[in-house]
Amino acid sequence: MVDETDQPDLEDDRDDDAYELDEDAVDRIIEAVEAGNQTRLQEELEPLHAADIADLLEQISRSERRDLILLYDRDFDGEILSELDDSLREEVIGILHPEVLADAVRELETDDVVDLVEDLEDEQQEAILGALEDSDRVAVESSLTYPEYSAGRLMQREVVMAPEHWNVGEAIDYLRDQDDLPEQFYHITLVDVRMRPVGDVTLGKLMASRREILLTTIVEDSFHVIPVNQDEEDVAYAFNQYHLISAPVVDEDERLVGVITIDDAMAVLDEEHEEDIMRLAGVGENSLSDKVIETAKGRFPWLAVNLVTAILASMVISMFDQEIAQLVALAVLMPIVASMGGNAGTQSLTVAVRAIATKDLTGRNVWRVIRREVLVGLINGVIFAIVMGLVGIFWFGGPELGYVIGAAMVINLVVAGLAGTVIPVLLERVGVDPALASGAFVTTVTDIVGFFAFLGLAAVVLL
Amino acid sequence: MVDETDQPDLEDDRDDDAYELDEDAVDRIIEAVEAGNQTRLQEELEPLHAADIADLLEQISRSERRDLILLYDRDFDGEILSELDDSLREEVIGILHPEVLADAVRELETDDVVDLVEDLEDEQQEAILGALEDSDRVAVESSLTYPEYSAGRLMQREVVMAPEHWNVGEAIDYLRDQDDLPEQFYHITLVDVRMRPVGDVTLGKLMASRREILLTTIVEDSFHVIPVNQDEEDVAYAFNQYHLISAPVVDEDERLVGVITIDDAMAVLDEEHEEDIMRLAGVGENSLSDKVIETAKGRFPWLAVNLVTAILASMVISMFDQEIAQLVALAVLMPIVASMGGNAGTQSLTVAVRAIATKDLTGRNVWRVIRREVLVGLINGVIFAIVMGLVGIFWFGGPELGYVIGAAMVINLVVAGLAGTVIPVLLERVGVDPALASGAFVTTVTDIVGFFAFLGLAAVVLL
Repeated sequence: MVDETDQPDLEDDRDDDAYELDEDAVDRIIEAVEAGNQTRLQEELEPLHAADIADLLEQISRSERRDLILLYDRDFDGEILSELDDSLREEVIGILHPEVLADAVRELETDDVVDLVEDLEDEQQEAILGALEDSDRVAVESSLTYPEYSAGRLMQREVVMAPEHWNVGEAIDYLRDQDDLPEQFYHITLVDVRMRPVGDVTLGKLMASRREILLTTIVEDSFHVIPVNQDEEDVAYAFNQYHLISAPVVDEDERLVGVITIDDAMAVLDEEHEEDIMRLAGVGENSLSDKVIETAKGRFPWLAVNLVTAILASMVISMFDQEIAQLVALAVLMPIVASMGGNAGTQSLTVAVRAIATKDLTGRNVWRVIRREVLVGLINGVIFAIVMGLVGIFWFGGPELGYVIGAAMVINLVVAGLAGTVIPVLLERVGVDPALASGAFVTTVTDIVGFFAFLGLAAVVLL
Repeated sequence: MVDETDQPDLEDDRDDDAYELDEDAVDRIIEAVEAGNQTRLQEELEPLHAADIADLLEQISRSERRDLILLYDRDFDGEILSELDDSLREEVIGILHPEVLADAVRELETDDVVDLVEDLEDEQQEAILGALEDSDRVAVESSLTYPEYSAGRLMQREVVMAPEHWNVGEAIDYLRDQDDLPEQFYHITLVDVRMRPVGDVTLGKLMASRREILLTTIVEDSFHVIPVNQDEEDVAYAFNQYHLISAPVVDEDERLVGVITIDDAMAVLDEEHEEDIMRLAGVGENSLSDKVIETAKGRFPWLAVNLVTAILASMVISMFDQEIAQLVALAVLMPIVASMGGNAGTQSLTVAVRAIATKDLTGRNVWRVIRREVLVGLINGVIFAIVMGLVGIFWFGGPELGYVIGAAMVINLVVAGLAGTVIPVLLERVGVDPALASGAFVTTVTDIVGFFAFLGLAAVVLL
């Protein structure tokens, strides 16, 4: 009934390791696997949540994973597959005996099956669809007709609804009579005669209201209808922005076709954030379970782009090779200007990318934000110019080099603020994800401007 | 009842601008404010959700904001304050007439008031607490006794509970009899005689079950108890990991003291992600509504750290000033090696920081991950070494410079993979947020190693 191991360890209260897998337990599990002791393995895994077992599988080695799955055998739960990282699913499905896989999949809700099969190769997809009961398979296949990453893929098809003219008593009697209510539901959706959703009533309100009260008088203030083709990123945004718990999904004719609940929206929000962080760092799709070759492939494109931009910056430097030969201190100091510009540009672009994602940076305030970023670059540029001027005096014995590096610093930090805001905004306008591409453009600009400003000023002023 | 403007525009389906504020509407609102037309302003704002009005206030200028708030006057809703960015709350509270503020605050749930007042200065905090009814003020003050960012600050104190021995009929009759059920609740929490929570029953299950069924037989599988002092970041993790909808909060004696619902956990997850992204970019606490001086201050520390590390790298370069004077091509090419290392290091560290946050990188797999990152650095290093070797031949007419830059590239990309993983792991072990500090350390390492390897090898091989 109640899972004893889920009781929190109160000693651990503010410990960062809360919810981390217990190392001793993992050791015991691996020992059981190595000893081929199925009973002990089952005992150790029994109290764990499927999500934790999936995490465990992600953390152990490939051969341990294989042995564990084969030994665990029929106890392998469909939910573990659901919780598993995409990169490991094909491997694990390949290890499972066909009957175990079939049993595991049959336990899942249809929306979890959709999530499971959508990224699999045809052969594995067919194996799983074939294992389902007919009605479930039809439901899954019909969900797969909606675009990837759309509300249609995310929704559950079982909706608890009531005609808009009912009162509380009628709704309660109806619910009490139903045999096949969904496992999880929190609202009753009111629909008009054309099956268009007009409001949600929470079960709590239903419980708290007298039988003769009309349902339409106790609907939620925050009612939001999601179009079935809407991008799941926007769905997650709507849940977060309007504090929705569940929302009806409608087709092109505004008829109710499903419902999305907040736990699915939260999972999407988490994935979207992960994607943003990874894209900002130029990592692409990546997980800790990826193999070496896949990881190297995933990292390659961004490094290749960076190589091109670094060569462009080097070409700027080579324009000044005579000046550098005359005054080697220029070569020593030039990376400082470029590096400061790169960092300031990354700061501005991260703020801009995030603000675009949260829909806070719009046509209305874009000029105000650009002005602010430029002013911030100017202020910090002047401060660091003074610092570097002083460093120049002490390091190279004279103020002239300090003036030059200071002036170049101011120019580059102003440009960084400008480029760091304008570039993501422009990329978004032309339909490119600013998280993915802004970094390369912005650091190219700050490298080139940094080297050119410093070396060019030096050429004019010093030589 | 049902908000007409909340109906989605189906034309917009897969449009990125879904949920962005309608520019025309914003124009009309600003016109109404400029014309001092209170009725038109109220008409325009009436259909908007409080979260959207808050977004609007964040996007317009300071003077427009002031005029709008004063004209909107008594219609100003407490929820708008709740939804507003922290950086604007003090400004807006300062503009509101004291009576308007008092009315606005009295409409809010106590957990929203806690969220509102916890970051305010004493004077404004007292103004708001003073406006509350006595019972609400006591509840808010008692929440404020829990540590910041703890479960205690996040929870609602109104919990719907039932003794564990009840059956479905008793629970339903009890709920139907209650006069003051909370606005939003989805579970009944079962408690033992010592008020310790033992399980959750969803209202849906309650509705679907026969009256004589014991509540203990229909509790949720996924039941999780949150200690009142647990960090809110861990609370959000638990909701996401175990797909919780709500969870009871317990004190040191394991007695039920409140409940946290998934919508609050989702908001925390969103904030934590924002913090991670901003910290990785060295931006610190930042919002689009911050003023220039605050923003410049927030950006300054990371730039200062970067200046120090850039100077360290420059010192490495200055060790080779004679070699550079002999062969200026070294100065032209050296930033390429450092830049590639910096990017590869950022890739590795972002993956590591994210994996630490999701508790996927642990003592068990850290060596496997380090080995993988080093191998990835080696593979990509070799590929880019070959590319740069060829570039060297064509650009500088001979293979030797190509060999040197290639070898330096391999070394720096291997070091980048190593440092990018080891540094965040070590920082986490000593209790420093790896998102905050890893970047500075990793790029220092890749800059220094990059310059040293390239210039050092060149000194030995070429000169």
